[in-house]
Amino acid sequence: MDKNFFVKSHGLGNDYIVIDSENITFEITQDFIKKICDVHYGIGSDGILVKYPSSVADFKLRIFNPDGSEAEKSGNGLRIFCKFLYDYGYTNKEEFTVETKGGLVRAKIEEKNKFGKAKVITVDMGKAIFEASKIPVKTDKKEFLGEKVKVGDKEYEVNCVSVGNPHCVIIKKELNEEEIKTYGSLIENHPLFPNRINVQFVKPISEDQAEILIWERGAGFTYASGSSSCAVASVLVKKGLAKNDITIKMIGGELKITVDKDWNIRMTGEVQEICRGIISEEFLESIK
Amino acid sequence: MDKNFFVKSHGLGNDYIVIDSENITFEITQDFIKKICDVHYGIGSDGILVKYPSSVADFKLRIFNPDGSEAEKSGNGLRIFCKFLYDYGYTNKEEFTVETKGGLVRAKIEEKNKFGKAKVITVDMGKAIFEASKIPVKTDKKEFLGEKVKVGDKEYEVNCVSVGNPHCVIIKKELNEEEIKTYGSLIENHPLFPNRINVQFVKPISEDQAEILIWERGAGFTYASGSSSCAVASVLVKKGLAKNDITIKMIGGELKITVDKDWNIRMTGEVQEICRGIISEEFLESIK
Repeated sequence: MDKNFFVKSHGLGNDYIVIDSENITFEITQDFIKKICDVHYGIGSDGILVKYPSSVADFKLRIFNPDGSEAEKSGNGLRIFCKFLYDYGYTNKEEFTVETKGGLVRAKIEEKNKFGKAKVITVDMGKAIFEASKIPVKTDKKEFLGEKVKVGDKEYEVNCVSVGNPHCVIIKKELNEEEIKTYGSLIENHPLFPNRINVQFVKPISEDQAEILIWERGAGFTYASGSSSCAVASVLVKKGLAKNDITIKMIGGELKITVDKDWNIRMTGEVQEICRGIISEEFLESIK
Repeated sequence: MDKNFFVKSHGLGNDYIVIDSENITFEITQDFIKKICDVHYGIGSDGILVKYPSSVADFKLRIFNPDGSEAEKSGNGLRIFCKFLYDYGYTNKEEFTVETKGGLVRAKIEEKNKFGKAKVITVDMGKAIFEASKIPVKTDKKEFLGEKVKVGDKEYEVNCVSVGNPHCVIIKKELNEEEIKTYGSLIENHPLFPNRINVQFVKPISEDQAEILIWERGAGFTYASGSSSCAVASVLVKKGLAKNDITIKMIGGELKITVDKDWNIRMTGEVQEICRGIISEEFLESIK
């Protein structure tokens, strides 16, 4: 493998650059991360995934945001990283473990594409937590499920859960983009939620399928989100509206979520490689 | 060179992907262009530069915008393309010609970097045209130089020129970002300019240096623009405020512009390669 090799891939339009810390000639500084993630002065991406050796798992992953800060986890990032490990021969096993800042993750290559590369991947996404104080929701209740909340001129029945970050799931008969764009921000910033909250409108289709719209905390209306899918699946299982395996359909694509009896969540979805190559010497030179 | 090889480079933050039409396994369709230019689903860029064989010049270049439409010219794109030709051994001459939709262009590699790759490149940028009807400006006057125009609560002395696209150059003692952000759009859309117009505020520093701020037609306040630099240099030469070689300093970087006695313009500036590699098979597969 050439020095300073990189891969750019996306999962549901969430795109990451992957590099191996043991195969680069430069330091991963904040300046490097900011510049490589910039679409005009660098490659352009939602973040970078860096492979490190691990003493507790098969591999170690660190995820960096475009501003240089470190992220705890990203479902799409994790799947992209696992595809990289498999496609570039770091492992020939189809199940392995990855150490992340957010904990140890089990990964499984479920399906390969016609080029023999990993296509569908399952990763652990942690535990669903319904305890209101841990989400957090400002309430005396132990959990905050099926509770009526007034938002502007509307009243919603909300279901709150944490899957590492806080979510507010609202079950609806029909989905309306205009409505989530209007009320999403009001729910996000409602005084009930001291850390603000991600919002999903959900239309259950069957026991194993649901369609959702997403309002992401700090980002607004988005086409796809791994953690939102996990939150919705957990709430549907909790309320007896879904079986343990459920496919979540979003505008940007779909993910299969499995919730076990101890509320452990696994996520299965596709990943696609966009390009692979070398970060240019003169680009690296300009950062020093 | 591997099949489906690409290079991504930028000039003053204007970024392009370069490919060789004779070294790809796919068709350059509108779908391909849109997807490869998208930062989330593709590599991400301001457009793609495609090399073709030419019967009238050393090389032929076609430039495509991210929406799939074809562009006539781009000063940064041209320099990026010439660097690609030189760096990847398509020529070992330092001067050569390129056929473009906007006409035949002479190119010269002026300076190399420490890796032996092209760094500073000069390209032809066409002719400055001061004839008002050709810019166009709605006026009975033959040229539109030093004319007072009322814009909102201000009056500006404007100088209009076409360098392939229309420009309105305003000479100022001091540059004020807030002012161009406030009045740029009003000037751009003034009834004098039936095709709207690009706007530059210019502070001449010496006979061979000027600092500028740019309001780009359809894009707003921007950090750097090749055609704006050409327009400003032409107007300064026309008004006797600059010599024929002038360095235009923008927030995003600088360009050297040469205007000869027949109003032919050449532009000299740096280009940097960001990365090089292969467009992935599975990405191409997803477009079919």
